[in-house]
Amino acid sequence: MAARPRVFDIDCRLAYTLDTPADFVFQLHAHEGPDQALESESVRLTPGVRSHVYTDPYTGQRFLRAQAPAGPLSVRYRARVAVRRPARERNAAEARVSELPDDLLHLLLPTRYCESDLLGSATTKLFGDLPPGVERVEAICDWIHRNVDYRLGSSTPTTTACDTFLNRAGVCRDFAHLAVTFCRALCIPARLAVGYAVFDKPPPDFHAMFEAWVGGRWELFDATRMSDPRGLVRIAVGRDAKDVAFATIYGAARSRAVVPEITRVA
Amino acid sequence: MAARPRVFDIDCRLAYTLDTPADFVFQLHAHEGPDQALESESVRLTPGVRSHVYTDPYTGQRFLRAQAPAGPLSVRYRARVAVRRPARERNAAEARVSELPDDLLHLLLPTRYCESDLLGSATTKLFGDLPPGVERVEAICDWIHRNVDYRLGSSTPTTTACDTFLNRAGVCRDFAHLAVTFCRALCIPARLAVGYAVFDKPPPDFHAMFEAWVGGRWELFDATRMSDPRGLVRIAVGRDAKDVAFATIYGAARSRAVVPEITRVA
Amino acid sequence: MAARPRVFDIDCRLAYTLDTPADFVFQLHAHEGPDQALESESVRLTPGVRSHVYTDPYTGQRFLRAQAPAGPLSVRYRARVAVRRPARERNAAEARVSELPDDLLHLLLPTRYCESDLLGSATTKLFGDLPPGVERVEAICDWIHRNVDYRLGSSTPTTTACDTFLNRAGVCRDFAHLAVTFCRALCIPARLAVGYAVFDKPPPDFHAMFEAWVGGRWELFDATRMSDPRGLVRIAVGRDAKDVAFATIYGAARSRAVVPEITRVA
Amino acid sequence: MAARPRVFDIDCRLAYTLDTPADFVFQLHAHEGPDQALESESVRLTPGVRSHVYTDPYTGQRFLRAQAPAGPLSVRYRARVAVRRPARERNAAEARVSELPDDLLHLLLPTRYCESDLLGSATTKLFGDLPPGVERVEAICDWIHRNVDYRLGSSTPTTTACDTFLNRAGVCRDFAHLAVTFCRALCIPARLAVGYAVFDKPPPDFHAMFEAWVGGRWELFDATRMSDPRGLVRIAVGRDAKDVAFATIYGAARSRAVVPEITRVA
Repeated sequence: MAARPRVFDIDCRLAYTLDTPADFVFQLHAHEGPDQALESESVRLTPGVRSHVYTDPYTGQRFLRAQAPAGPLSVRYRARVAVRRPARERNAAEARVSELPDDLLHLLLPTRYCESDLLGSATTKLFGDLPPGVERVEAICDWIHRNVDYRLGSSTPTTTACDTFLNRAGVCRDFAHLAVTFCRALCIPARLAVGYAVFDKPPPDFHAMFEAWVGGRWELFDATRMSDPRGLVRIAVGRDAKDVAFATIYGAARSRAVVPEITRVA
Repeated sequence: MAARPRVFDIDCRLAYTLDTPADFVFQLHAHEGPDQALESESVRLTPGVRSHVYTDPYTGQRFLRAQAPAGPLSVRYRARVAVRRPARERNAAEARVSELPDDLLHLLLPTRYCESDLLGSATTKLFGDLPPGVERVEAICDWIHRNVDYRLGSSTPTTTACDTFLNRAGVCRDFAHLAVTFCRALCIPARLAVGYAVFDKPPPDFHAMFEAWVGGRWELFDATRMSDPRGLVRIAVGRDAKDVAFATIYGAARSRAVVPEITRVA
Repeated sequence: MAARPRVFDIDCRLAYTLDTPADFVFQLHAHEGPDQALESESVRLTPGVRSHVYTDPYTGQRFLRAQAPAGPLSVRYRARVAVRRPARERNAAEARVSELPDDLLHLLLPTRYCESDLLGSATTKLFGDLPPGVERVEAICDWIHRNVDYRLGSSTPTTTACDTFLNRAGVCRDFAHLAVTFCRALCIPARLAVGYAVFDKPPPDFHAMFEAWVGGRWELFDATRMSDPRGLVRIAVGRDAKDVAFATIYGAARSRAVVPEITRVA
Repeated sequence: MAARPRVFDIDCRLAYTLDTPADFVFQLHAHEGPDQALESESVRLTPGVRSHVYTDPYTGQRFLRAQAPAGPLSVRYRARVAVRRPARERNAAEARVSELPDDLLHLLLPTRYCESDLLGSATTKLFGDLPPGVERVEAICDWIHRNVDYRLGSSTPTTTACDTFLNRAGVCRDFAHLAVTFCRALCIPARLAVGYAVFDKPPPDFHAMFEAWVGGRWELFDATRMSDPRGLVRIAVGRDAKDVAFATIYGAARSRAVVPEITRVA
């Protein structure tokens, strides 16, 4: 079960120009947990920027809050992370609603970009007759892969799972939203998972996958099939994309660079 | 080709209560054309109501405009209509866009309740690989029949084809809108057709079917499979439901009765 | 500041009929906190129904989970609650984003029924020039009261703040969603608050208000003006209605009675 | 009333690259009518492209249909047009619904991009108390000018009036759609009008205005205030943008140039 860890170097650089002061909430820090160990880490902001890190007591993920004055802002996060994620369990079962841990119930609910309340009927028609379990989640991934085109520029930050179900095109975040929505409509707790991922092809970018609760634990899936879930350096999990944005900005800022590099070193 | 005509008696009664004067546009008159002959007809409104009939020069369908004072309003339309509609042609081909008559081009466009501009991609994925022709339109009907539940109360007057595609439930009008939308997205001119229809089960109600342009003529289809297209006493055709409402009301009116009875007499 | 408490008796009865077993998550328990003291409390379910109460460690609100077999299900919650809520502070200031407590940041984000990401521009045009502070939140309530009609049946469980902004009609939940959305778009943390409320007119029903973070604390507002915020017996707060539904049902159940009675006894 | 005509030279050039054959419907021809006289005109397509012009018998507007083979396609339309449009009548009254000509009734209905059925309530709250007549239409233009930002890139070809009402940003087509929607919700027949317009600032582009039926005739308005309605060289009017697109393309084509130049020569 416990494979040799995959070790990655992260070097993430963001740069902005601000005409007026602005507030930022970054989510760039690699998550620490049983499946991810941090070997080293540093974060550097433009001197003079006030900042602090907030760790969510529930999830353990970290938020870097910054108050930046007008002018240039740059952020650099570097880390070495060892990922040791067990292989997906082949026969993982879905839990009945009555068996779900109390603190997972909320992950059955619809959210801003995952309108499982609107797609209930369609989900039942598509996947309701499949045997429950991890294979049904894999069937969801397969359906999305076959029926939704990966196309840069085909969606916007406000695109929802319903939009993607209609348009049949999107990027990683849209694929993950649709998968999360189908899962929740089937009473499988599901959430977005974002992080640093190795792609076959450049350019580097943040990546969104999703997690479904099967077999009594969170299993990670990539509906885009663009990256191996065992190699995701997870930053955060959340109800949907709004919870796990790498940067939420309060104020006006022009983005100059977003370069989340990741290199496998072992 | 020319079967014996089916003859129907229509007895349609509408009743309203108005607290203040209101304007009405009714579409109740049976259409006259090669496939429908009017043997007799009468219309009666509450005395004192000003009204006139307007015949659209393009389509030949008739609009009954009425200005009703406060108080009760009742409308009764009776007719005997012989419907002689040819059987559907088995091998009817789709026309290429270049072959479409000029005056049908507009029936490829999206309309209020038929957003073919939003469902283009989904339509192509569902039906794009099927051989073109009347069988593809029948495949659309089959898909809708399998994937959309007929359920009274599941939609409203503003429900669109996209809503129905998401919700997977609707009534006759929603089934027809979705079919029209799929057709247009495949470059098949399509329109709504409404009228009086015989159902297996009461209660009597207006019915919506749809027409697709295949084999060089309009063929009638019923995606609900609730009534035989050869027995529809057509009132009107239109881009979508807003064009062919049996009553469009300008003002406040409470509906007391909508009883569009139809009886087959030969 | 600390007024004499208002004391209420709650007697809430729900009844369902189930054709097959179903899972329920009820939120019926009055919240305990500085502004609400529980003097007595009891809950009774149909014998034979398995249930337990889950208390959210963050908010302290309680979820009653139940697994009910086929047949009738009834739930009765009774409590005596003393509410001692301070008068609204007249000059409460809005916090700057940089001043917001870490654990409130997420209440600036859009949610399923509160699309503050879509209404940002409209909010700025309507309220952006008003002086910040509690009076701006009151201006939001006034605007909603003037521009949205309270009308039973004008919305559904999936109606969102954008829908209400377009339709200009809704019920308490819609009023609260729109207010929450405007607040978040102005960077004021805001959330739904639901509970038992005394209305001028029967029938009894659950009520939704909203809370905005001003003056360094949560202030309660009722955009419908139907009930005094100082008399709400709060059950729960949440991001929007999905978080605080009095009953979330997994399975098929027909509701027979929803009677959340409240009586002021002191 | 009859001012000296304004005379314009139109030189409109479009260029595309096609990988496979495609069908086009262009609307480039200046309209002829009492307020626009054509002094000269020519149209030139890439040699070898089959085409013909279709004149709508109702509106008189012209559609250029073309079937282009793979390869480059260019279209050039040149014309000299004298526009002699009467000044707007100051006291033009709205017609009551009962007074509307039969063939205008359909311009009260909602369309794909003008959901007057969804914005009825909001429209009444915004404009319902204003005295009816041309001044109410001008109040609509003023409201849009104050409340909607003109911003290139803020909308897409599928943006509707409701979207614009929510987003408060758009381009000329969105401004016109919203105005048309408000008018229809007030029972004022309204339609889109597109053509060649002189702007203060380059670059040249097609322009969308709108027409409202007041004082017994069509009056032209520009909710963007970017161009004088008396100087619009009208190409077409329609229910909304889909009816009057300068190019509707069936097939895959890459646009290389859209240069609709207009010069005032007298």
